[in-house]
Amino acid sequence: MKWFEAAAEEIIAGIKSSIEELNIKEVERLIDLLLEAKEKKIFIVGMGRSGFVARAFALRLMNLGFSVYFLGETITPAAEKGDLLIAISGTGSTKMVLTASTAAKEIGATVIAITSFPESQLGQAADHIITIKGRTKMGWPREEDYLARQIVGEREPLTPLGSVFENNCMVFLDSLVVELMHRLGRTEEDLKRRHATIE
Amino acid sequence: MKWFEAAAEEIIAGIKSSIEELNIKEVERLIDLLLEAKEKKIFIVGMGRSGFVARAFALRLMNLGFSVYFLGETITPAAEKGDLLIAISGTGSTKMVLTASTAAKEIGATVIAITSFPESQLGQAADHIITIKGRTKMGWPREEDYLARQIVGEREPLTPLGSVFENNCMVFLDSLVVELMHRLGRTEEDLKRRHATIE
Amino acid sequence: MKWFEAAAEEIIAGIKSSIEELNIKEVERLIDLLLEAKEKKIFIVGMGRSGFVARAFALRLMNLGFSVYFLGETITPAAEKGDLLIAISGTGSTKMVLTASTAAKEIGATVIAITSFPESQLGQAADHIITIKGRTKMGWPREEDYLARQIVGEREPLTPLGSVFENNCMVFLDSLVVELMHRLGRTEEDLKRRHATIE
Amino acid sequence: MKWFEAAAEEIIAGIKSSIEELNIKEVERLIDLLLEAKEKKIFIVGMGRSGFVARAFALRLMNLGFSVYFLGETITPAAEKGDLLIAISGTGSTKMVLTASTAAKEIGATVIAITSFPESQLGQAADHIITIKGRTKMGWPREEDYLARQIVGEREPLTPLGSVFENNCMVFLDSLVVELMHRLGRTEEDLKRRHATIE
Repeated sequence: MKWFEAAAEEIIAGIKSSIEELNIKEVERLIDLLLEAKEKKIFIVGMGRSGFVARAFALRLMNLGFSVYFLGETITPAAEKGDLLIAISGTGSTKMVLTASTAAKEIGATVIAITSFPESQLGQAADHIITIKGRTKMGWPREEDYLARQIVGEREPLTPLGSVFENNCMVFLDSLVVELMHRLGRTEEDLKRRHATIE
Repeated sequence: MKWFEAAAEEIIAGIKSSIEELNIKEVERLIDLLLEAKEKKIFIVGMGRSGFVARAFALRLMNLGFSVYFLGETITPAAEKGDLLIAISGTGSTKMVLTASTAAKEIGATVIAITSFPESQLGQAADHIITIKGRTKMGWPREEDYLARQIVGEREPLTPLGSVFENNCMVFLDSLVVELMHRLGRTEEDLKRRHATIE
Repeated sequence: MKWFEAAAEEIIAGIKSSIEELNIKEVERLIDLLLEAKEKKIFIVGMGRSGFVARAFALRLMNLGFSVYFLGETITPAAEKGDLLIAISGTGSTKMVLTASTAAKEIGATVIAITSFPESQLGQAADHIITIKGRTKMGWPREEDYLARQIVGEREPLTPLGSVFENNCMVFLDSLVVELMHRLGRTEEDLKRRHATIE
Repeated sequence: MKWFEAAAEEIIAGIKSSIEELNIKEVERLIDLLLEAKEKKIFIVGMGRSGFVARAFALRLMNLGFSVYFLGETITPAAEKGDLLIAISGTGSTKMVLTASTAAKEIGATVIAITSFPESQLGQAADHIITIKGRTKMGWPREEDYLARQIVGEREPLTPLGSVFENNCMVFLDSLVVELMHRLGRTEEDLKRRHATIE
């Protein structure tokens, strides 16, 4: 179980430092954009494990009373000018996410990128970026650093592929939900009232 | 390609006869229940291929302006007393569908079953039933008939498992959508306005 | 119920003529490609209602013993050179489907398009095309025909948006499954053995 | 942002203590069951946010080379005697998860429950339980404790509903993946080779 324990320690330390290194102004702006979108539609997109974290966030936005949709699910309606698209991709280069973001921009929706790479294609396409630290599939945190660090004898991160980003992102978004709850004056009871009763 | 052609012929003949043998009163009642649910929430449930047909219907109900949700998808909210659950199962004995229907009944939602077997557990739990002909996974149309017909030399149906039900159900529901469009005074343009723009 | 009945008639007639107007050589080639892919991976992609029809086909390919995956679902593995991508889009211009098809081509996978518009971007990207008649969202069958026919007094089609294509496609693919069953020597019992037991 | 910061702190402390309070024997047994299932099929089930965490784990098991399926997705095959079902539910009382677990038991599959409540219906149905601390939707950690603690003036937890369980579970499962990687002798490169290339 030594790998288990070392990995858990690494993940928890990673989450902690990802929260500490957040750019608070970026987060404040995200909160404003979300609160302004109360009367609009919010679309969330992400592929693979980022997509699952994205869905967990979408579910809580629904609990909070937002009109929120996960792209690709059955009842997703038309996005319109002024709507919000939140695109989650550690690398910022997931093609399906880029395609959706470009389509959203053309419609006149505001695109928010949650990514480790603000310089990525997704970052460049976005109206607003939240940078979440994470060794993503692109490396540690970038391929070149990864090699550089190995040369100087640093230890390779334990968690594979995008796991660091996905865990950091999950905790970031769940903390954001608590902030939104209080800004909106919602109690846990309010959330529960909107929570799925058939499951 | 002879099997292809024979199968297509059998499926088309099956759809035709399933539409002819519909109980019009059952369908009229379903239309009334849907129109009465304009201000309520509609939940749709189905597993496997029945679930895909169910989702295709849910998408059109969204296009028509209904508040509709497919059970198990991310943003599905709480079902409440007076809401509608439409449960699709050829055999009427799919366990997950039964579990959802029972939960919906307890909440005080109205359960509509779309099935080939009105006597099934699902049929018995439902407030309203639409019987759609279909040789389902249970046989042709029931196991005993299947054997009986084989003995007298009738040809075994070509299409496997629930395929007949699923095709019949798809055409039934898409025809229903057209009836609803006209009853609600919706044009194709109205539907298009609500159709996904990012896909 | 007159709209219901007229719509059912139109859908059934549409399916019938879509089967008759198939290019048999296109279908034969598709069957060959599928049988050659027995030892490879098959990926299926489609958005919205085309995606549900695509999933219904994917499920039957799984029943038949193929290694098949629906793009975007959890356990979809890496596509590799020589694998097959089946892309379903009535209009042939669904962006997410085009993005997936382009990515598949770059990897060296064979792309099969099932569409009403062989000249579309999807058709042009594909290695093989199956043309399935259908008034799609683009019109009847094309915008210009639609206007032209209205001018000469032809009746507007009843079914909205892509419904015609989706129904035609469902029956086409389910007929194909029966042909594949016989070519592979599979019985219904074989399919049932692979069918989900927890649902 | 004070609620954001307090919530992040609470979530991180919760994850840390949930890892420390794990029953190592339970985890060791889970690892054994997973390694023994290398030649079998593994099914994963969970609803809502637990379901998204479950899917993130399923994706990594696929990366590791397991034959793994998320219940309800398109290509899920038949579960058979000797297969594994991993059921994730914080409360241990999610009906759809119970229905799936009962069906799996009847088939002769081994059921593993990941839950905060080993005494729950799911816990009782399971062959093996992993207890993951978490204030779940049932309370803090149980309704009665919640009230009791409020009376003595303890602070109400910030994170709503099942969020604590879901974050704890995500980190637990991602740490487990690293342990499995090493036990199976898999490198990150091996995982990447199996990772989705079209997304």
